[in-house]
Amino acid sequence: MEEKRKQLRIGLAGLGNVGTGVYKNLLKNQDLLSERTGTTLVVTKIAVRDINRKRDIEVPKELITSNWNELIEDPDIDVIVELIGGVDEAFKLISGALNANKAVVTGNKAVLAERGKELIELSEKQNAPLYCEAAVAGGIPIIKAVKEALIGNRIGSIYGIINGTSNYILTRMNSGGIEFSEALAEATEKGYAEADPSLDINGWDAGHKAIILGWLSYGQWLRTEEVSVIGIEDISLDDVAFADDLGYEIKLLGVIRQAKNDERIEVRVSPNLIPKDHILSSVDGVFNAVAVHGDVVGETLFYGSGAGQDATSSAVISDLADAAENINNRVGCTGFVPKGEFGTVLPLSETISQYYLRLSVADRPGVLAKIATITANHDVGILSVIQPEPESSTEHIPLVLLLHDASYGTVQAALKSILELDTVEPKHTLLRVETLEQ
Amino acid sequence: MEEKRKQLRIGLAGLGNVGTGVYKNLLKNQDLLSERTGTTLVVTKIAVRDINRKRDIEVPKELITSNWNELIEDPDIDVIVELIGGVDEAFKLISGALNANKAVVTGNKAVLAERGKELIELSEKQNAPLYCEAAVAGGIPIIKAVKEALIGNRIGSIYGIINGTSNYILTRMNSGGIEFSEALAEATEKGYAEADPSLDINGWDAGHKAIILGWLSYGQWLRTEEVSVIGIEDISLDDVAFADDLGYEIKLLGVIRQAKNDERIEVRVSPNLIPKDHILSSVDGVFNAVAVHGDVVGETLFYGSGAGQDATSSAVISDLADAAENINNRVGCTGFVPKGEFGTVLPLSETISQYYLRLSVADRPGVLAKIATITANHDVGILSVIQPEPESSTEHIPLVLLLHDASYGTVQAALKSILELDTVEPKHTLLRVETLEQ
Repeated sequence: MEEKRKQLRIGLAGLGNVGTGVYKNLLKNQDLLSERTGTTLVVTKIAVRDINRKRDIEVPKELITSNWNELIEDPDIDVIVELIGGVDEAFKLISGALNANKAVVTGNKAVLAERGKELIELSEKQNAPLYCEAAVAGGIPIIKAVKEALIGNRIGSIYGIINGTSNYILTRMNSGGIEFSEALAEATEKGYAEADPSLDINGWDAGHKAIILGWLSYGQWLRTEEVSVIGIEDISLDDVAFADDLGYEIKLLGVIRQAKNDERIEVRVSPNLIPKDHILSSVDGVFNAVAVHGDVVGETLFYGSGAGQDATSSAVISDLADAAENINNRVGCTGFVPKGEFGTVLPLSETISQYYLRLSVADRPGVLAKIATITANHDVGILSVIQPEPESSTEHIPLVLLLHDASYGTVQAALKSILELDTVEPKHTLLRVETLEQ
Repeated sequence: MEEKRKQLRIGLAGLGNVGTGVYKNLLKNQDLLSERTGTTLVVTKIAVRDINRKRDIEVPKELITSNWNELIEDPDIDVIVELIGGVDEAFKLISGALNANKAVVTGNKAVLAERGKELIELSEKQNAPLYCEAAVAGGIPIIKAVKEALIGNRIGSIYGIINGTSNYILTRMNSGGIEFSEALAEATEKGYAEADPSLDINGWDAGHKAIILGWLSYGQWLRTEEVSVIGIEDISLDDVAFADDLGYEIKLLGVIRQAKNDERIEVRVSPNLIPKDHILSSVDGVFNAVAVHGDVVGETLFYGSGAGQDATSSAVISDLADAAENINNRVGCTGFVPKGEFGTVLPLSETISQYYLRLSVADRPGVLAKIATITANHDVGILSVIQPEPESSTEHIPLVLLLHDASYGTVQAALKSILELDTVEPKHTLLRVETLEQ
């Protein structure tokens, strides 16, 4: 009698952009996956919000349900793929599945950032694995890389370009010389930005991913209020050009790292000046990249499509293959759940970096001297100064300073004093400069 | 009674550069690894060639033996790490360990390239896993990425900068304007090149790695005689400069891909012109990078240190963690051993790319017309031509052609006719141009 071929029966919750990609690509490469894993990966039920919605792909009607509870209650389903998005309902779905001892694959960064701690604890308690490769940086296997490939390393730092929309906009501002609003319109037109791009532009899409990377690296789930998140909406073409003059490019970075000379950790997102000769600055358009520094491996970088139907489904499918292997081997949670090493979070005011400060100052002698006196009094060194020739006679001209390593609190205090000078306008831009050296 | 802490007992064969790194870093991060894997990773025996050799690290004398058979015969050893190098003895050691049902971790690309087929078959037969992350691209987890993270993908192509010494030399020629011999001397002085750098310079170090990547991608072990390998020794500073003028940079690439419009595969190593705006051209110095194109994920790239004691030991340690997990779960071979998809290898003469051809021609009218007639007769289009003004009156001047996509055989035939012209000198340089589009 022929041995019955092993099957992994998948319940798919959500048939939006990524869900459609998962269904389509599982079918497309089913033979390949079956050959490689020894298991046939089959979607046996799909929960959708609106049964009657017209879709890009044909799905057998008998697979479809409008109630995701049916996926949880179906004893024949081995693993549930959560792609419904949002926080509250997704939390119910994932925790329900784990409580039913089913493995879960999710691509939902928001629910992990908000409630990852509870979900991972539940996963361990139930010995039902929770996979989330698709939640960070789409097709880039950064979760597997940090959890498994770099397991022998203490993570010194992670610098990630982890929002494709922002990176597209900044790339176009830099290479095309167009303003933020024009670049955003272009991104929307090309389908790179959502109809409502606010989570991309305000930095929180990257913020959620940074929280997950913080957990992977240091075993702690930071609360959203512990994470400083600044988006790219205030970056001007002038800043892009001044950065270029100074040898830098502006990128929205997720920064996850152990503070220098300190065991405390910092997790934050903001636009940063990075050196043009660093490979991260070559990451253009909608691509993502994550640079990871480990104490044993040194510098590494992982690059690819951070979003999109196909790239993200590649990540979901690799999680499904891992789930198939664990289920076949009758093993529950495997992989290496990170353990907390560092107990405390560095307050934002104590985080250290270099800074780019653009001021608008009166065009008269002595202004720079006054500003330099203030920074010196705060013990902040000046690395370089750009004071462009005014193009026409204007009352105020730009003054750009590159400031030496200092705590954010110190720089804020110095800035406050500078802005009190009657020769300095209130409008200014303060950006971090990351040398990416560790 | 307290539960006995799980242990993974490691027999280490070879205490050279990488072996020393493995021993040192396992000790350095032992607590971290124990916390993450639930297992204490302990080296319980070390086989070395010369017991009395002075070493950089202190190793308890009782661990050391000069006979690696003791590692195989020790029933308490779970896994053997093979870092002795070479082919014949390493083959005996690895096959002996697998026959004794021990897991094996190796960083030895030569033994895999020469005898990987037998070793993998033995591993499967014995259900004793064979791990080889450290054999390709040092600290970059490219084996895990292709085998596990990209499991849902058909691999369209892999383009790898997988020899750090060659990349250092080409980087210095490009950015420093120094000749090959001077750059090689610099690499040797800095410890980036071996005392005998021939395997780096003639391309075969990369060739071995390309064979392993070919197996990972297409399930086939190509024989060394099926792989075309060309090193960088004939690259001149003029070629580097002409490539730059044309918008390219010269890199030694391992190319593993499915031929265009064809299911046949090609595996080869040669210096290639690649576009300066592709991220691979930003990979400088001793760093390695591997660009993988999958049909689902699209373009990805993995970057890091391709060699060195610490980076390579990071890869060995991740294999040991995987071995620990499998042994704890009483599971033998896991992961996804690739299966053959494509039965045949594309002969070198049928491989297709664009080409860079530098000729030395007589400085008189009509020469280009004759050459263009020959290429047209072979149906090879010319994309661009550089004919620099001669600096002084010389009899022969360089002529650089960029040729359209054509098979290697066709270009060789056209070149043969061109070199028969009495206005063309025999000395020439023919390099491939990779657009890296797929």
